[in-house]
Formats: sequence, structure tokens, C-alpha cells
Amino acid sequence: MKRKGILIVVSGFSGTGKGTLMKELVRTYDNYALSVSMTTRKPRPGEEEGKEYFFVSEEEFIKKVREDGLVEYANYCGNFYGTPREYVERQLEKGKDVILEIEIQGALKVREKFPTALLMFVMPPNAAELKKRLEGRGTESEAVIAERISRAAVEAEGIEKYDFLVINDNLEECTARMHALVQAAHSMPVRNPELIDEMRRQLEALR
Amino acid sequence: MKRKGILIVVSGFSGTGKGTLMKELVRTYDNYALSVSMTTRKPRPGEEEGKEYFFVSEEEFIKKVREDGLVEYANYCGNFYGTPREYVERQLEKGKDVILEIEIQGALKVREKFPTALLMFVMPPNAAELKKRLEGRGTESEAVIAERISRAAVEAEGIEKYDFLVINDNLEECTARMHALVQAAHSMPVRNPELIDEMRRQLEALR
Repeated sequence: MKRKGILIVVSGFSGTGKGTLMKELVRTYDNYALSVSMTTRKPRPGEEEGKEYFFVSEEEFIKKVREDGLVEYANYCGNFYGTPREYVERQLEKGKDVILEIEIQGALKVREKFPTALLMFVMPPNAAELKKRLEGRGTESEAVIAERISRAAVEAEGIEKYDFLVINDNLEECTARMHALVQAAHSMPVRNPELIDEMRRQLEALR
Repeated sequence: MKRKGILIVVSGFSGTGKGTLMKELVRTYDNYALSVSMTTRKPRPGEEEGKEYFFVSEEEFIKKVREDGLVEYANYCGNFYGTPREYVERQLEKGKDVILEIEIQGALKVREKFPTALLMFVMPPNAAELKKRLEGRGTESEAVIAERISRAAVEAEGIEKYDFLVINDNLEECTARMHALVQAAHSMPVRNPELIDEMRRQLEALR
């Protein structure tokens, strides 16, 4: 029986290293596809169009929303972020586990549309480490860092809505743990309705 | 922070090899404790008192129920089965993951009392394999086998209530998979309230 792909939503405080983690996951294991979001925020130094994000104008973004071309979208720190639908659906049909890196508002909207989506929350080992990473990035002003810490405190209120918690202490170990969690998610009854139906049919036939 | 033990409930059709699987899990990995049930059913050849079960009379069983000394109990195929409470609670406090092998009625009762219990359902690769294993055991009459197949069909109706499905195709692989699923369960927010509270406190302190 062909295994269906899981839609994996990864959230976590800004500065937790989610992006690096996701790239490592895709690089290390087969079967993952990384969804690229569309955003109206300006590129950071080193970010490439179509790699980290599709960078678009607010006008273009709104057009996509009107066409129902996004799985979800949200406004975060004054910018729009959204997930193009077509790529996600095509990869899931192929059996790929598709990763979306989005924040909590978007994560909950995705679960409404895809009830079998898997929601994972990435946390730093502790809050001081988070602050250090945000400062170390060197691309954000103090005001922006303060805003992100504030935002993290708000996002932390939603952690219980996620299926799994992942502590990003060590890139390699954390990648392996995330992969194991995705495999575990594949073993949940909700993602195996055909397998269960088949067993029921066989048992009825033996009675 | 000390990791709390998980109460693991393992169910599965009779003849799925749950017992062997649980013993292999305890033998292969640290941190598991196997709960021994109390039953009024007669011992099968080779079964030892206090190892597979505590074999008691119906009178003794009812006395234990009256003392509130069982986590759960149920009647299955005309016999009583129950889980002595004291052992389970002592092991969980020590941080052990405690395994109970019980059928679905009992599993659901355990979840009511222990909302963070982990429910796992073990299935054979297919129903024909199940029948073969029941027949191969050689200790049961044809009528009992037919009853167990019937019972399996009824139990299959409850599979969606379990957290994880485990296909017992190969003892070694299945044991490793079960262990990975327990580790995944340890990464669920519901089993980490202290870790989440601590992160929230730290973030508030940084604002």
C-alpha cells in the first residue's frame, strides 16, 4: 500500500534555527519536500528569490489570495507570509512529506484545512540562548529583537496546540529526532485509514 | 529536569505476539517496567505465577477490586483481568515507562484515570497471519480460536482510539519501532508541562 505524504508544519520562535534544521532534514533524508513561502518582507542579506522565499509585492500577494492560490497566509511583524497551494498538493500526492515553516496563526489554519497535518514546535534549549542567537545574527536592530522576544512569549502560549516539541540543542541530533517524530506520526491511526479498513475487511471475511 | 515515566497501554488482537514483543522491549532497552496483571483465567502450559500473570481466584480478585487496588479491570472471554495499582504508581514516580498489556475496554479506562497514558495497538501484518498464529499456538480449541477472531473483529472497531499502530512483522524491527514511538510520545507537549512553563517564565523575564 502506498504511504501517503504528511503535511508537516514547523513553527518556533524566531532565532531558533528552524530554517537550518529544515534544510538539514531535507539534505539528510529522502522523502521530504520543503515548501517555499511567499512573502512581502524584504530579503535579508544572502537570501535568494525562490530559495528562502518568493519575495513579492503586497499587490502580487493579494492577487494570489484572491485566486485561492495559498494554503494559508498570515501577517507577522507587518509583513505577509503565505504557502502556495499547488506545490504542496502535488508533493503530497507523490507521497512526499512536505514541510512548511510557518508561525502559529498559519499552523492552526493549515490544520483546519488538512486535519492530518503534523504540527511541530521547535524551541531553543532556554530563553537566554534564544536572545543570544537573535543578537548574534547581527541583521536586526535592538527594537526588532525586543519585538521578537515579545512575540515569542505570545507564541509560547500556543505550544500545547502542537503535536510535538523539539529542542534544538544540536543540529545533527535534532534533525534525527525530528525525522523519528515524522516516522512516529506515520504510525498514527488517523494517517492509516486504508490499512485499518483493510484489516477490518480481512477479519470479517475470516469469521 | 527529571523526565516523568509514561504509562504505556499495549493492546492488540490475541495471537499478535504482544507478550513476546513487550518482553523484548524490556530486555533490549532500559527504562521500561512491565506491569504484571492479575487474572482469574487458568495458566496456560509454561506460564508462571507472578511472571505472565498473578493467577487468583474470583473471590480474591473481587476483594482487590473492593480495596480499590486495581488501576483497571475487565472481563474478557469469561475471565477477569486487572492491573495492580501500587506497582504502576511506584515505577512511574521513579521515571520508568510502565507497560500494561490489556485489551481495549481496560485501555480506555486507564486513559480516563491517566490522561497522559500512551495507547498503542499491535496488529499482525494481515488477518490470515493472525489465524495461523492462533492455530500454531496449539493450546486453544477451534471454538476458542473462532471466538478470538470474532473478538478481534470487534476490537478492530476501536483502533482509532489508540495513539499509535504497530505492525508486528519482525520481532527485532517491531521492538525498535515501539521504542521510537515511546520516545516520540515523550516529545508531546502534554507530557512536558514543566518544560513549557519554564520556557514561558524565562521569556517573560527577558521582556
